[in-house]
Amino acid sequence: MSEPGAAGPGPAAIQVSRIMRPDDANIAGNVHGGTILKMIEEAGAIISTRHCNSQAGEPCVAALARVERTDFLSPMCIGEVANVSAEITYTSRHSVEVQVNVMSENILTGAKKLTNKATLWYVPLSLKNVNKVLEVPPIQYTRKEQEDEGKKRYEEQKLDRLETKQRNGDVIFPIINPDRQTKEPHTVGYSQSSLIHLVGPSDCTLLGFVHGGVTMKLMDEVAGIVAARHCKTNIVTASVDAINFHEKIKKGCVITISGRMTFTSNKSMEIEVFVDADPFVDEPRERYRAVSAFFTYVSLSKEGKPLPVPQLLTETEDEKRRFEEGKGRYLQTKAKRQAQMQQAAQQ
Amino acid sequence: MSEPGAAGPGPAAIQVSRIMRPDDANIAGNVHGGTILKMIEEAGAIISTRHCNSQAGEPCVAALARVERTDFLSPMCIGEVANVSAEITYTSRHSVEVQVNVMSENILTGAKKLTNKATLWYVPLSLKNVNKVLEVPPIQYTRKEQEDEGKKRYEEQKLDRLETKQRNGDVIFPIINPDRQTKEPHTVGYSQSSLIHLVGPSDCTLLGFVHGGVTMKLMDEVAGIVAARHCKTNIVTASVDAINFHEKIKKGCVITISGRMTFTSNKSMEIEVFVDADPFVDEPRERYRAVSAFFTYVSLSKEGKPLPVPQLLTETEDEKRRFEEGKGRYLQTKAKRQAQMQQAAQQ
Amino acid sequence: MSEPGAAGPGPAAIQVSRIMRPDDANIAGNVHGGTILKMIEEAGAIISTRHCNSQAGEPCVAALARVERTDFLSPMCIGEVANVSAEITYTSRHSVEVQVNVMSENILTGAKKLTNKATLWYVPLSLKNVNKVLEVPPIQYTRKEQEDEGKKRYEEQKLDRLETKQRNGDVIFPIINPDRQTKEPHTVGYSQSSLIHLVGPSDCTLLGFVHGGVTMKLMDEVAGIVAARHCKTNIVTASVDAINFHEKIKKGCVITISGRMTFTSNKSMEIEVFVDADPFVDEPRERYRAVSAFFTYVSLSKEGKPLPVPQLLTETEDEKRRFEEGKGRYLQTKAKRQAQMQQAAQQ
Repeated sequence: MSEPGAAGPGPAAIQVSRIMRPDDANIAGNVHGGTILKMIEEAGAIISTRHCNSQAGEPCVAALARVERTDFLSPMCIGEVANVSAEITYTSRHSVEVQVNVMSENILTGAKKLTNKATLWYVPLSLKNVNKVLEVPPIQYTRKEQEDEGKKRYEEQKLDRLETKQRNGDVIFPIINPDRQTKEPHTVGYSQSSLIHLVGPSDCTLLGFVHGGVTMKLMDEVAGIVAARHCKTNIVTASVDAINFHEKIKKGCVITISGRMTFTSNKSMEIEVFVDADPFVDEPRERYRAVSAFFTYVSLSKEGKPLPVPQLLTETEDEKRRFEEGKGRYLQTKAKRQAQMQQAAQQ
Repeated sequence: MSEPGAAGPGPAAIQVSRIMRPDDANIAGNVHGGTILKMIEEAGAIISTRHCNSQAGEPCVAALARVERTDFLSPMCIGEVANVSAEITYTSRHSVEVQVNVMSENILTGAKKLTNKATLWYVPLSLKNVNKVLEVPPIQYTRKEQEDEGKKRYEEQKLDRLETKQRNGDVIFPIINPDRQTKEPHTVGYSQSSLIHLVGPSDCTLLGFVHGGVTMKLMDEVAGIVAARHCKTNIVTASVDAINFHEKIKKGCVITISGRMTFTSNKSMEIEVFVDADPFVDEPRERYRAVSAFFTYVSLSKEGKPLPVPQLLTETEDEKRRFEEGKGRYLQTKAKRQAQMQQAAQQ
Repeated sequence: MSEPGAAGPGPAAIQVSRIMRPDDANIAGNVHGGTILKMIEEAGAIISTRHCNSQAGEPCVAALARVERTDFLSPMCIGEVANVSAEITYTSRHSVEVQVNVMSENILTGAKKLTNKATLWYVPLSLKNVNKVLEVPPIQYTRKEQEDEGKKRYEEQKLDRLETKQRNGDVIFPIINPDRQTKEPHTVGYSQSSLIHLVGPSDCTLLGFVHGGVTMKLMDEVAGIVAARHCKTNIVTASVDAINFHEKIKKGCVITISGRMTFTSNKSMEIEVFVDADPFVDEPRERYRAVSAFFTYVSLSKEGKPLPVPQLLTETEDEKRRFEEGKGRYLQTKAKRQAQMQQAAQQ
């Protein structure tokens, strides 16, 4: 037998595999997007914490700062093995970029499919002082272009993080959870949902703050309920827009995760999800917005074919405005994808 | 109490939704009563802890003191959404009354059913000194009668808590778990069961004591196994008698949960459940009785119709006495329900 | 970025990593042996199921048949990463040998320690007919000796499996759970414990039978409670004797896991654990013994040093006989270890 890890992933790579269980999936047997996001984030947290502590210095824990837009390329099912492999692809002075691939593997047939590609950004926080961001040891690049492309991605995400921070700070999103029973089907109010979760010890990192992956799993759970309420069919996560984690959430907080539908195309639904933390025992006790994100869902028939989605009925001015904004995002993504396909075809 | 969710979650109300997963249910697909009791208690703990910390003062955690008798009105299934809404309906100087409604929602058909109504009592314990009970900020009542009715409920439960405390202290219930294989079917000894559980961090509140909901879930688990062993069919929780939490259970304890059948009617079984805590590592304290309660179960056919229950065979004098006491509780509940129905019919 | 899996384990190897959470450990922060056994078995189940389906033919699921004796070489703590790597090292006509290494990694200091080496045997069962054992595709050996040594291990375990099967069949172990409070400390009856578990969907393989790792985790839980009750200190799993899985356990069964102390040396305790399955809803089949095994525990001080263990007080003839048998196993293991150390010193 080979030595432990000898044949395995090197210092800058990690692999995690797990059989998908009934609780990881919906009743149609499709694994929740949130289960996959949680596995992705756990692999990212391990590899980036390991890297940031690889040189002598202050011990630190890597905290998730951002996840880039992620598409769910093909559904995963109960009984399949999820193979998650993560690799560090860029380091700036204070942040680490991790790229993660998820393959679904049917171990009965041997069939493998690429399920997800995700890019995550972590920052190292001192174990002694959680407000102190430490320096990241640089990685070696095999080619100069790798570093240049990484730097470009770094600059782009930095800009976007700044923008959402301002938006999150400026705009207040009142989530009113009305009596859904008096609402018309297919209105925003009809499918709106929320969930509360008391943050327990197993949800947290060594620093005592919630793992980003735990938050994303709960966000996907709420978004899934909103989507199912709207179209009353089997729904699956199609994509998640970039998520920025501006504010940490501490152990013992109560978090409220709320979701409302913002936009529907013919075959997809966009749901906006908010996470608010309530440190109700700790000081200071004010509730604050920790994260927000857009999830896109599609509705599937029993044979796994996409079904038409009922159009969202907007009632208020705000709802109409958000619908238009959602449409903008939808068209932008569509255009980007077509450009990529053309590019690929020309190569 | 106002209708569920009518005013939406204001400062004094909360709403939680979660999809029921395979692990929440038995193999027939019926969600365990214990799963629902745990959700109810979590909502209650959040809303009452939040309320008790709403005014400047010593930070505290609300601990469950009592749950009133709860009926399970209709079964919930895997894939359905449980909507739990909780509201504070009365406050005394040192305690908070929370009323919780649980609705099951089939998100594919939109069908909704009232599953449970529960009333819980919490007391605020200081975060710094767990033996210190703090004062509860008073709530505002819209009508004077609300306060008067609340006060009446408060006095009634106070009396009952006192009584069971004396009963629990007086009587010792040695549960001997005999070699079941030598027992006749349908005897008390045949179906008697017990389980041990090591209290882990996720079972506990910020104070390091077991959540009441965790205890109730384990109690329902044992009671369900006793019921299934007795009638060897699909069984579901029909009701739980009032439970008083006199003694706290600390993290690291081993708890033994034991259940024995006390009474059978034609279509129901009553099971008495005991929780004993064993603080074996921490302190020199002796094993002690933390909670006890009566659970009632019914047996269901594959079509969900109630089945006849085999009569319990009592052997010892104690078993015969407990059978008669159980019969008393059964007839009392039946009479109360008939009176309520007549009253409702006259209105 | 490299292609998924490019740098990772090949078809005959797998690597799994996971951060250890508070729920995986006892209150002293030491990860439960059962958590590690469960991870080991999951890696083994994935790699052997994948291998057995690697050639066209009837689809199958690999079921755990046996785990060889396993030593826990050093404790693992909350916050550390468990790196589990598994590799197929031998195949017979109907069985697969998997060797698994577990390394604990402190990602803050980079320190790594070998925690476990385990050897597991799986047999492929047809997905259509669970009673049909299929043929295993042969693996390639790089050296002839590898095959010869594997064959020797295969023959040895086959013999041992046959023996325990007869022993399990012959001897019946009635577990009487007495009222512990009447018992003297340090007697067998005083620490004796049992738990019941309702087998849920997430406990099971695609065939609907309990994962061997789930069973081992529950066995370690009971054994740990017996050990803690006996010496009232922080205890950790030191080793597990070979376990043979003769009987499958089906979804929906209730399993009773019982443990009793059999032997103490100066610094260790041996606990015998039984798993009995009760298919009470499904079929008319009687309760049956599914697995039994010996676990060895040591008691640790706050600094992690081994503490003396109070001697077990044996009362009945059976207890005295089992104590002597335990002593025999203890001395045999000790002699074997010394021989290995001498051999290693001479090389």
